[in-house]
Amino acid sequence: MSGTDDRYAVLVERLRKVALLESCGSVLGWDEQTYMPSGGAAHRAEQLALLAGMAHQEATEPELGDLIGELEGEELGEPGGPRAANVREARRAYNRATCLPRRLVEEISRVTTLSQQAWVAARREKDFPAFLPFLEQVVVLKREEAAAIGFGDGGEPYDALLDHYEPGATSSWVDGVFSPLRAATVELLDAIRGSQVQPPVDILTRSYPVDAQREFGMAASKRIGFSFEEGRLDVAAHPFCSGFGPGDCRLTTRYDEHHFPGAFFGTMHESGHGIYEQGLDRQAFGTAMGVSCSLGIHESQSRMWENFVGRGDPFWIHLFSEAQATFPEALGQETRERFVAAINDVRPSMIRVEADEVTYNLHIMLRFELERALVDGSLDPADVPGAWNDAFTRDFGITPADDSEGCLQDIHWSAGLLGYFPTYALGNIYAAQFFVAADRAIGPLSEQFAEGEFGSLKEWLNREIHQRGRQCRADELVEVVTGDGLSHEPLVAHLRGRFGPLYDL
Amino acid sequence: MSGTDDRYAVLVERLRKVALLESCGSVLGWDEQTYMPSGGAAHRAEQLALLAGMAHQEATEPELGDLIGELEGEELGEPGGPRAANVREARRAYNRATCLPRRLVEEISRVTTLSQQAWVAARREKDFPAFLPFLEQVVVLKREEAAAIGFGDGGEPYDALLDHYEPGATSSWVDGVFSPLRAATVELLDAIRGSQVQPPVDILTRSYPVDAQREFGMAASKRIGFSFEEGRLDVAAHPFCSGFGPGDCRLTTRYDEHHFPGAFFGTMHESGHGIYEQGLDRQAFGTAMGVSCSLGIHESQSRMWENFVGRGDPFWIHLFSEAQATFPEALGQETRERFVAAINDVRPSMIRVEADEVTYNLHIMLRFELERALVDGSLDPADVPGAWNDAFTRDFGITPADDSEGCLQDIHWSAGLLGYFPTYALGNIYAAQFFVAADRAIGPLSEQFAEGEFGSLKEWLNREIHQRGRQCRADELVEVVTGDGLSHEPLVAHLRGRFGPLYDL
Repeated sequence: MSGTDDRYAVLVERLRKVALLESCGSVLGWDEQTYMPSGGAAHRAEQLALLAGMAHQEATEPELGDLIGELEGEELGEPGGPRAANVREARRAYNRATCLPRRLVEEISRVTTLSQQAWVAARREKDFPAFLPFLEQVVVLKREEAAAIGFGDGGEPYDALLDHYEPGATSSWVDGVFSPLRAATVELLDAIRGSQVQPPVDILTRSYPVDAQREFGMAASKRIGFSFEEGRLDVAAHPFCSGFGPGDCRLTTRYDEHHFPGAFFGTMHESGHGIYEQGLDRQAFGTAMGVSCSLGIHESQSRMWENFVGRGDPFWIHLFSEAQATFPEALGQETRERFVAAINDVRPSMIRVEADEVTYNLHIMLRFELERALVDGSLDPADVPGAWNDAFTRDFGITPADDSEGCLQDIHWSAGLLGYFPTYALGNIYAAQFFVAADRAIGPLSEQFAEGEFGSLKEWLNREIHQRGRQCRADELVEVVTGDGLSHEPLVAHLRGRFGPLYDL
Repeated sequence: MSGTDDRYAVLVERLRKVALLESCGSVLGWDEQTYMPSGGAAHRAEQLALLAGMAHQEATEPELGDLIGELEGEELGEPGGPRAANVREARRAYNRATCLPRRLVEEISRVTTLSQQAWVAARREKDFPAFLPFLEQVVVLKREEAAAIGFGDGGEPYDALLDHYEPGATSSWVDGVFSPLRAATVELLDAIRGSQVQPPVDILTRSYPVDAQREFGMAASKRIGFSFEEGRLDVAAHPFCSGFGPGDCRLTTRYDEHHFPGAFFGTMHESGHGIYEQGLDRQAFGTAMGVSCSLGIHESQSRMWENFVGRGDPFWIHLFSEAQATFPEALGQETRERFVAAINDVRPSMIRVEADEVTYNLHIMLRFELERALVDGSLDPADVPGAWNDAFTRDFGITPADDSEGCLQDIHWSAGLLGYFPTYALGNIYAAQFFVAADRAIGPLSEQFAEGEFGSLKEWLNREIHQRGRQCRADELVEVVTGDGLSHEPLVAHLRGRFGPLYDL
């Protein structure tokens, strides 16, 4: 066995080095979004391209491929166990990386860095034409990437991109998952639209001083288990979470004095991602056992803390009096019942990250439809605003007034993240399944939340999900953790259970 | 010639790549000092060690050495011109790098990252013993580095380190420069101590709200020519300036509500460094023509804006009424004369970065003495507090109450920057010579400052110093720019000219 042990140790060493180098890029990427002055964009693009190119070089060394090949033929402990999973995922990553020329990797890095800066300005100025040349470059490069990677029989180019974020997923599989969810969503939304209940949403646009929002959000983040000894919360144009590696995870959000939910639930959301990152097995850094299972599973964690926990009445049984003390002008005279109704207001709206739980998945399906068309070439980047507004009007019955609340609202395409959006709705589905399983195993959770106790859920997630890394695929993880196959039904049940009473359905 | 042109282009390409990689490390180093949570230190040390090791690998590739060797035998345009200087400095850097094993470079990077974090905590807790194990490691590694690099006949190990920061300088040369400066300083200080004048220093410890300090400092920084489109100002335990490359230069300072000069003159100082970085020839990034001449020349720029400009009466003729409007409680009833006297108070004090212009160089000479002894092995790291306090009492007539205002006050040793301190006093000497030359060429500067006009000095510095990069050595640059050889006399004349009238000497 000692030959195998040695080879395995060398493999881990090599994988760690790639991950370490990639994590340097994460620091530069975070800085780009948070603090970098605009004049630094061109140099930053060169820096990130170099790091991406060097990481790619390390990740595609023929010796690494040989090593993986040798280990694949050897005894690696229990089948499907940690070592076997690490070698399996090393193969997956190696094969994917070796499909891509270093030139393309560097070019994608360089272009998307500049493109993100252009997007920030274009979004601010509501100026799609200023962003279009960047979008065109990104789409060309991502199409090239998809073609280089390839896809399975009966598949399409988009699958090659999707698979990077949600290993094993394909467009047609996503179609199959989304289709019944869309039907159930439309049905629920129609019922809510027919309701006479009008949540008192004016509560949420009163004055919430930004400093107080920041303190309150950080306190909630800490309460649910995000460690600020090993993380931070900063401001960025688009909220995100970036795990730099063991002991350092960065969250961002954005504040609007007259919109309480944006920053607060954004912070809860990113904290959920951060709790996942902080819950990974740090000894396994650089290997499959030390990374998240998939972006969908990642999103299940953020959406669980944001929505299943944070928008529920039990959470506010615990927290509402603190909220009143923090925002006396806005909430001093309010009741918890009215506040909870307001934060659960359901209505078609423009901005995905601020959407309610019911309409949220429709936002995702729209993006899935459009980016799939961008990748297969049937949608020209120049036609995105029109296509967006048409689809939006079709699905939501309202039309964006400008592109900043339309196709320019999300950073993803500027960052080259095509194939990423479906993972958000998958995350909602996974979250519902996990939440049911957690409640069954360690519940009733609602009673714990009402007492400000979130530790048992966090520890359950640490144990059942975070510590498992990428040992199995997302749909397999759902089955391992919940005992059930993937299904949209728990999510629909959650939505009906939450919004039925609120809207007197 | 085309063979040479091609080879030269390849050389520049390689040098740029090294610089680009090093600049990634600068971003991580800046983040470490400004925003990194404490839990991230261990991972950051690994990241920085990897980057340092990879940059070292690129910088020591035998092909690079061969290329430099070929170009050294070829026609590179005018002797001493840009191409010749770039090749000369490429040789210098290559020789230095190839003396050092990659293992040592990585180890120094790793240890100094952790050591800086330990220093922050030890300084806060006034706990030298907690820092001692790190200092010991740093000294061992730097002695190893000095031994690997070597030094000239009649030199000493310290020279090998000093030469990295101030090319061409040696310990005995520094001795020769410092010795007459010390004598003149002690004489002036004695005269000031004998004066009846007592500057109204209580002015400076009134309430200066931190937010207002920040705004006021940034406005002054902008006024003298630092571009915030291409830079930032953040908070760090130890103020510094880090140029990330073209278009992105970061400054830091630290605020104390009850000590106005600390942050303000710190900001002016770092802005001086930043104006140098922003004034470099960005097309020449990565080559000698695109970097600062030496740390001493760098410091001449920071000390010029901090002291020669910022502590002068003309500057406050322009700015004092704005200061009064910004800090009405502290300054509303004050006169400019009293304020300028206060910011030029001369007295022995503990903290170097807050020292007056007269005693400042004594702080440097003390550090030079101690670190030289650390490097030659005659001072044991464990004995640093005692040696510091003895020397401090000898030179200043006062004794630090604890190590935080003694040997723990500066970040340098924790960061492995032994051999760096002398460049600060050299910077003062250079600054005085440059300031005289500038006044002769484009003055009278005092009239311009009184009208808030700083552009002509900045442009003169850009042209005469910044754009010259590392084309020649620091002492040569002084001669080229001023027409005179290196001399402490202009500095002494400046000090006498400024403090004579203030203290009725």
